[in-house]
Amino acid sequence: MTDLTALPATQLARRLRAGEVSAAEVMAAHLDRIRGREPALRAFASLDEEAAMAGARAADRRLASGAAPGALHGLPLGVKDVLDAAGLPSGYGSPIWEGFVPRADSAAVAVARGAGAVVIGKTVTTEFATRRPGPTANPVNPAHTPGGSSSGSAAGVAAGFFPLAFGTQTAGSILRPAAFCGVVGYMPTHGAIHRAGMKVMSETLDTIGALARTVADCALLVGAMTRADLGDPEARPERAPRLLLVPGDAAQAAPETLALMERAAEAAARAGATVTRGELPAAVTAAAAAHPVVMNMESAQALAWELAHHREAISEVLREKLEPAAALPAAALAEAREAFARARAAFPAAIAGFDAVLTSAAPGEAPEGLGWTGDPAFNLLWTALGAPAVSVPAGLGPRGLPLGVQVVAAPGRDREALRWAEWMRQALG
Amino acid sequence: MTDLTALPATQLARRLRAGEVSAAEVMAAHLDRIRGREPALRAFASLDEEAAMAGARAADRRLASGAAPGALHGLPLGVKDVLDAAGLPSGYGSPIWEGFVPRADSAAVAVARGAGAVVIGKTVTTEFATRRPGPTANPVNPAHTPGGSSSGSAAGVAAGFFPLAFGTQTAGSILRPAAFCGVVGYMPTHGAIHRAGMKVMSETLDTIGALARTVADCALLVGAMTRADLGDPEARPERAPRLLLVPGDAAQAAPETLALMERAAEAAARAGATVTRGELPAAVTAAAAAHPVVMNMESAQALAWELAHHREAISEVLREKLEPAAALPAAALAEAREAFARARAAFPAAIAGFDAVLTSAAPGEAPEGLGWTGDPAFNLLWTALGAPAVSVPAGLGPRGLPLGVQVVAAPGRDREALRWAEWMRQALG
Repeated sequence: MTDLTALPATQLARRLRAGEVSAAEVMAAHLDRIRGREPALRAFASLDEEAAMAGARAADRRLASGAAPGALHGLPLGVKDVLDAAGLPSGYGSPIWEGFVPRADSAAVAVARGAGAVVIGKTVTTEFATRRPGPTANPVNPAHTPGGSSSGSAAGVAAGFFPLAFGTQTAGSILRPAAFCGVVGYMPTHGAIHRAGMKVMSETLDTIGALARTVADCALLVGAMTRADLGDPEARPERAPRLLLVPGDAAQAAPETLALMERAAEAAARAGATVTRGELPAAVTAAAAAHPVVMNMESAQALAWELAHHREAISEVLREKLEPAAALPAAALAEAREAFARARAAFPAAIAGFDAVLTSAAPGEAPEGLGWTGDPAFNLLWTALGAPAVSVPAGLGPRGLPLGVQVVAAPGRDREALRWAEWMRQALG
Repeated sequence: MTDLTALPATQLARRLRAGEVSAAEVMAAHLDRIRGREPALRAFASLDEEAAMAGARAADRRLASGAAPGALHGLPLGVKDVLDAAGLPSGYGSPIWEGFVPRADSAAVAVARGAGAVVIGKTVTTEFATRRPGPTANPVNPAHTPGGSSSGSAAGVAAGFFPLAFGTQTAGSILRPAAFCGVVGYMPTHGAIHRAGMKVMSETLDTIGALARTVADCALLVGAMTRADLGDPEARPERAPRLLLVPGDAAQAAPETLALMERAAEAAARAGATVTRGELPAAVTAAAAAHPVVMNMESAQALAWELAHHREAISEVLREKLEPAAALPAAALAEAREAFARARAAFPAAIAGFDAVLTSAAPGEAPEGLGWTGDPAFNLLWTALGAPAVSVPAGLGPRGLPLGVQVVAAPGRDREALRWAEWMRQALG
């Protein structure tokens, strides 16, 4: 018998639409799997099994009544706990918001539900999607972090708790946990998915995206949200890509990451790609230096109410970021945003002649312990550029934990980012 | 005896900080005034006199305890009802949200309160800051609209209900009602004030700003929010400005508007300005054509939950905008955003050599009746450009209703927009 929790979302969706399997059966299979491993992994911030089953049965009734099934009909969806879902608690990873139940869905959740997805639960986020981790463990080795801030979404996808999940990224919060857990992460072009009903921190940076086990699954979820034509990432392309290999800061990369970049370059070349090693111009990389200023100054503004009324309930590690940022002169933010604007303007020309950028998705394997979700050093530049980025699994590191490579395209070229990420995954074997 | 409701906020703030008047006296004076005219004007979506007085007394106690007074210490503040204020109902101008009381302040309200402002109440917005008007009347002539969507903030400032108010603008929602009511409206550079806790419609366009009776009052409020150095708009500049007079689409301008532009050009020249008539290049004005696509497509995304669950409670006039926009291909939004990016990139060079753009703040006087808040045709381009814009009163039209001129500078040049707007106001006498 098919394990319904192991199928890609694209295949599951076809079976659900054809009536070969019911949404209730699919949901029950996932809840079974959750019962087994959730006590050890703690991917959920809140889970209401009855509500999830009721949602699945409602999807079955809609199909039975003759309604045309949506693109996500019957698929269980994990929702990062910075996105509101009506009737489910929104904790945003902070005790300040404990017990808060929003009246409305966030726009992302409303659209996903409209396309037939069934929200299975809210997934653990770090504190306001920043530093302080939640309790989630890495399914590959629970002694290691799953990464963050989309910790529960990445771990839950890897553990087969749900085939699709929403994540959000301000620095590296989709791509890095995807790599650490051995799944696919996709951050679309900045602004692709509306952030109404999200606990936004940095208005300039925060981007809603997808985690899933295949590139095509990520495209299925985001395509259903935006109605953009993301193509079929699994369709065989007519040619191999021209890739710009950007190794990133070698000082920040673990030996296995440097080796991975060699291996990825060789595999891509063997599969027919033109691989050029290079660095991006200073006007582009300046956005990485400006990133913490934008992130921390805007986040301090976003949490003005929490800082004024619940300061003691904010972690020290977060306060240490926000309070100095709040004291910086306003001109620092204006200058950092101007650096972003210049970098965004320069980026397409900097990679003209290439189909995509190839780099590592993280500095190395997932760090040991649950106290730190790892370093977003390999992700934050692409977030600052508003560029679509996709990470795909790329084997294991020396401790047996997943590695990931990241494929980035110019803003608006999401199809290319998805297509060449899938191509790269296949090239790596 | 001084009428405390007639003083500019800057003067009131000085007296409050010096202890010459208490916040409670100031609040009581404004509540008195509200009792007299609010039944006819209906500027408030919600008003809790006791809470307002309690807030004022708390401000007095803070000062008495020796705490350093904030920049807005003791000033009554009207808050447009798309910005959450903890404990006060947030209706967003829609029956869908009736009875909703947010747990937290929006970032804007939290920062204003932190600077000492006392929220006097929530002011009427049109439905989700779009088309369908609320009940507010124009204080100059209650048979006419006050404009919108920041209807209650503009009317309340004009009526002396509060010296300062928050507004928000997606097309012309701060500048136009300011002009219609004979007050000052200031939309800062896009992104100046964080939108956390705002009912955001268009992420690309929505901008939080200020309404007040003087330019310096607007600068006081926004400066307290952003800590940016906005200068002293009332300080005498060393020279007169070089102004680019952009008359806008003459077909959309009433005769009194065309006459106003002539009068403004003459007054500015007489006061020493260089006034050059011109049009902006097509790459810049293309943003105006793209504006409705961005606004309506993003707004339809923002209201995904309301459209899915409360469609019948959305006005027909809004549905007629949103539903066709929701059916447009995703590429239309991408193209419109690209037009914005090109226009924003081209705008500073297009006005290089000028200190500011001078244009009308509205097509004419406030329309008669309360069924339509007027046309944002003279505002939406500047909103699309993310440019700071200030409207100042400029005499009366043929029906005795206020006219306004608008001064616009390049993004980031808020000081110049404020300074030359005040200069223009003085030049017009």
